[in-house]
Amino acid sequence: MFGIENPQTLLLQQDGAVLHVTLNRPELRNAMSETMLRELVSVFNAIQDDLTIRAVVLRGAGGHFCAGGDIKDMAALRSEAMTAGNHDGYIRFNRAFGTLIEQVNHAPQVVVAVLEGAVLGGGFGLACVSDIALCRNNAQFGLPETGLGVIPAQIAPFVVQRIGLTQARRLALLGNRFDGQEAARIGIVHEVFSSDEALNEALSTTLQHIRRTAPNASRVTKALLHNSTQVSDLSTTLDQAAIQFAAAVSSDEGTEGTMAFIQKRLPKWAD
Amino acid sequence: MFGIENPQTLLLQQDGAVLHVTLNRPELRNAMSETMLRELVSVFNAIQDDLTIRAVVLRGAGGHFCAGGDIKDMAALRSEAMTAGNHDGYIRFNRAFGTLIEQVNHAPQVVVAVLEGAVLGGGFGLACVSDIALCRNNAQFGLPETGLGVIPAQIAPFVVQRIGLTQARRLALLGNRFDGQEAARIGIVHEVFSSDEALNEALSTTLQHIRRTAPNASRVTKALLHNSTQVSDLSTTLDQAAIQFAAAVSSDEGTEGTMAFIQKRLPKWAD
Amino acid sequence: MFGIENPQTLLLQQDGAVLHVTLNRPELRNAMSETMLRELVSVFNAIQDDLTIRAVVLRGAGGHFCAGGDIKDMAALRSEAMTAGNHDGYIRFNRAFGTLIEQVNHAPQVVVAVLEGAVLGGGFGLACVSDIALCRNNAQFGLPETGLGVIPAQIAPFVVQRIGLTQARRLALLGNRFDGQEAARIGIVHEVFSSDEALNEALSTTLQHIRRTAPNASRVTKALLHNSTQVSDLSTTLDQAAIQFAAAVSSDEGTEGTMAFIQKRLPKWAD
Repeated sequence: MFGIENPQTLLLQQDGAVLHVTLNRPELRNAMSETMLRELVSVFNAIQDDLTIRAVVLRGAGGHFCAGGDIKDMAALRSEAMTAGNHDGYIRFNRAFGTLIEQVNHAPQVVVAVLEGAVLGGGFGLACVSDIALCRNNAQFGLPETGLGVIPAQIAPFVVQRIGLTQARRLALLGNRFDGQEAARIGIVHEVFSSDEALNEALSTTLQHIRRTAPNASRVTKALLHNSTQVSDLSTTLDQAAIQFAAAVSSDEGTEGTMAFIQKRLPKWAD
Repeated sequence: MFGIENPQTLLLQQDGAVLHVTLNRPELRNAMSETMLRELVSVFNAIQDDLTIRAVVLRGAGGHFCAGGDIKDMAALRSEAMTAGNHDGYIRFNRAFGTLIEQVNHAPQVVVAVLEGAVLGGGFGLACVSDIALCRNNAQFGLPETGLGVIPAQIAPFVVQRIGLTQARRLALLGNRFDGQEAARIGIVHEVFSSDEALNEALSTTLQHIRRTAPNASRVTKALLHNSTQVSDLSTTLDQAAIQFAAAVSSDEGTEGTMAFIQKRLPKWAD
Repeated sequence: MFGIENPQTLLLQQDGAVLHVTLNRPELRNAMSETMLRELVSVFNAIQDDLTIRAVVLRGAGGHFCAGGDIKDMAALRSEAMTAGNHDGYIRFNRAFGTLIEQVNHAPQVVVAVLEGAVLGGGFGLACVSDIALCRNNAQFGLPETGLGVIPAQIAPFVVQRIGLTQARRLALLGNRFDGQEAARIGIVHEVFSSDEALNEALSTTLQHIRRTAPNASRVTKALLHNSTQVSDLSTTLDQAAIQFAAAVSSDEGTEGTMAFIQKRLPKWAD
């Protein structure tokens, strides 16, 4: 199911057009192990071209989102480096995490992150590529790397993309912890809630909104948004977008959407 | 006047250095038709090199800014596509709107948008390229495209440029409506007002500020700001800017500005 | 000391890993003269490779940060231009200021700006490249250039990088003054305080945080953050970052940091 036989680190549950992906190592605050990384890549690969999955809800089990890299895996890599006499293992594992974040960033589905408890290091990076981030006020965010003598290598670029250099430089260079309220203020998350009930209600509303959008139009729009970050290619982006608009408006979705609007009813895909 | 004989969709009124451009199809919440698009292009073309026009106030008649693309025009394009057996009409119209937005974005005048009522789809896009956006708290913003099976093709790139990918992806992928307060919070507009009186007073103050800035220096500065978005060309931008600074400080404006400052009086252009 | 024999315009004081650089022309609200510019460049050059200096605190003497360019220097340049019959002096001085701002922006140390009183023109530009900006609520910010017939030539690009085009275009084209509260709201500064005591306390806390981060990891991270602003090179940035991560984790800092974390003690560099 979803590219994995028996997931060891994830809970996967489909509810209509929504796939719930839950990081499931609660005893370790869902620390990102090599296995978890590999399983996440498999899931996002498996649903890449699946138009029936329109949203992914990413969250952690046991009240935490993700506390960052797994310390056991890091220790194993340390031994490996000593034996091999080189850093290849570190480089490979670190770079692989960046590839995962890029993949989630560009996933054609709408990715909704539900952020509770620890959102640290790699968990912070993953949160930064969600399309919609819903957060508990008492979540704990931070980039602790420089305090540990290392660097937020695969994370910093996505933090800069998420909130800009001005806020990112302070967080990365201070390494301070901050809560969900502050995360909302500086633009990491979109909405913050002071109770689990309010958070879950907002998740429902969000998924309802997503169900009303046309599956293919949503995919094309998400890719268009990413292209739009390349300022120097604006003219190319607009040319291409005009062709995509014409295709969308003439497609079954465009026809049904217009018809539903005129007839003041929900379009078929919203059922 | 201003490049058009008898504008059908706009009201144009000059008040000294300020040109008031009012979208004037109030019965259709100022929906953007092909004619309106063409008339707006003509006006901005006509004033391009006119140093006596220093600000453009862009607003809508009848309590709305602009509700997006015109449905009649879209229906006509649909017929055209069926007859012609191709999408050329759609592509042309859609791309033309992007060209208009780019033109307003780079207009040498200071463009002040006054946002009330519906600010949807294409109207949202137009709002996103104003230099100063003043807004009523109860205005209604939104990108409804994906809910209709189409895409915010010529709009999304300008929303990303306006508020960054983080906020833009949520708005475009949810398609939700939101008010002026929220538009200010996420950075679409600069100021929000809870009454028409307060809004109009702020418009007066804004225009007063603009009248105190030197006409040519203001144009050069606006172009410089746009160049500054191309991060990779920073060094070139700074080299060029130094030459422009030297030209400005030696010009009549620079001389008069310095003199007025020393003599504690308003410069001539502020009269 | 720090590349200057007898600084004429700066106060320099080292306190462990922190260098305090105070602009010291209080009678002129610390206006940026050619001498001050040259002295700042010398200091930042001198500490470039000094790993024992980990933070620079940049502030002004006498209750002001910096009121912008020095009027006397500008008058001298005006005479020079008249005698020489060209603008070379203006161009050189203006461009040199951009070079200074770039240097401070990329300084390997964590640069903390303490902003009080006037933060105008060039002072505003300098504030915009700090890693952490602490501000008094009653500080006065502004880009007055266009009101004087000139342009914020070497400043505008850094304002755009600091707060984005949307906010920058309004400030530069209106030329209006605004206070520290507003500066925090639009993202120029990170924190704002209503008393000198609160500001100084926050400065202490900030420096304490910085002392807990590893000196070399902090430098590498700051360079990585700057690279991350080049969106089109993301893949290259991530490749390089993976190699840097491996180097960091295997370094003395990485070993000590991990050890300290496991032993629940502060790492050596935090002493």
